[in-house]
Amino acid sequence: MSLKLYELVGTDAARPFSPYCWRTRMALAHKGLSAETLPWRFTEKSAIAPHGSERVPVLLHHDKPVADSWIIANYLEVNFPDRPSLFGGEGGRAMARMINAWGDIAIVGGLSPLVIADIPNNLGEVDAAYFRKSREARFGKSLEEVQASRDTGIVAFRKSLEIMRQTFKTQPFLGGEAPNYADYIVFGGFQWARVVSPFKLLETDDPIYAWREKLLDAFEGMARKSPGHEV
Amino acid sequence: MSLKLYELVGTDAARPFSPYCWRTRMALAHKGLSAETLPWRFTEKSAIAPHGSERVPVLLHHDKPVADSWIIANYLEVNFPDRPSLFGGEGGRAMARMINAWGDIAIVGGLSPLVIADIPNNLGEVDAAYFRKSREARFGKSLEEVQASRDTGIVAFRKSLEIMRQTFKTQPFLGGEAPNYADYIVFGGFQWARVVSPFKLLETDDPIYAWREKLLDAFEGMARKSPGHEV
Repeated sequence: MSLKLYELVGTDAARPFSPYCWRTRMALAHKGLSAETLPWRFTEKSAIAPHGSERVPVLLHHDKPVADSWIIANYLEVNFPDRPSLFGGEGGRAMARMINAWGDIAIVGGLSPLVIADIPNNLGEVDAAYFRKSREARFGKSLEEVQASRDTGIVAFRKSLEIMRQTFKTQPFLGGEAPNYADYIVFGGFQWARVVSPFKLLETDDPIYAWREKLLDAFEGMARKSPGHEV
Repeated sequence: MSLKLYELVGTDAARPFSPYCWRTRMALAHKGLSAETLPWRFTEKSAIAPHGSERVPVLLHHDKPVADSWIIANYLEVNFPDRPSLFGGEGGRAMARMINAWGDIAIVGGLSPLVIADIPNNLGEVDAAYFRKSREARFGKSLEEVQASRDTGIVAFRKSLEIMRQTFKTQPFLGGEAPNYADYIVFGGFQWARVVSPFKLLETDDPIYAWREKLLDAFEGMARKSPGHEV
């Protein structure tokens, strides 16, 4: 089958780092699907504009574009029903919607001020300038100022993950006995941080650390083999 | 079938108010089950001790005790499989586990400082003294001091619900097109607050307000008919 995936990269085309693209990468692997990667950089808006999107991931399935990680996950579930389920039924699909929002706000939003000033190090000159200008406008201060308080910010971030620890008291994955899309939603954020920043996010005795290890090892170590920092 | 439910009440035995008991009440109604209510008060530990629990809800099914709202929900799903599903499949059951933790921490934990000093008004003298003493020890200050900043605390609480608003952009309930246990987890907290306190939690133009209205109307208005304040 023909599947191609536009994925965000920087100077190293083999180092995809978007949290949303990693949700899709893990979802494809869960379905046993492989997609040709189409490296895409922040300033290459014109490359995906014909596919009706300003952001990645964009999946091309027989050249039909599907944009947005949540919509892609639903598309894969509907169009590859004989492959392992991403949601474990209609109730899981529905509940994953709020977990997706939690992943956006608590995980990506929570990690952002901890790693954001490290991101330009991974980008070429034009992309780094674009990234800095657009994000500094959004935060109203320099990336370095945003990140300056990360040694205290990390404490609040770790506390915000308490609902994961409570869950891991009775099951090993957010998806139950095995990982599913609920796990990939959250893991995408951790993998993003691992790729762009050496900042230590989790204590090794945190149950979330053990969970992340298992996802780094999943699919023959796909995420761990992708270039990144020690975590 | 024989189902009995120990439910937390105060001076008014017809006014159950525990957020966890309301999760169970809604779950029973979802399954089309009715349970005889056994009113229980904070200081009546000896009444439920023989059932192996120090807290309510405790469900008795043919006199077999099942304690803890999460465990009860799972018990109902397994033992009444021909009734409407609470989770919509195994994936939903698994994902509801983290939503349950979010309900405990963000909803019950978030609402607590907003309504806690109003709770003794609903209790008899002995229970009010027990409640005040045990909760003030936990917070390290008086209930009135905890609640004193609720006019600013409500702003942070409303913000913490953003993941629900994001969800309601694409589906009417946390459980999808119809409510399921994910909704009851969260609604239990709102119903608790509605019963014990007149404090206004939601703006009427908040999508979460509309969602709460629908759950107050569910099961022939079961939650709305239960004594409480205008919300």
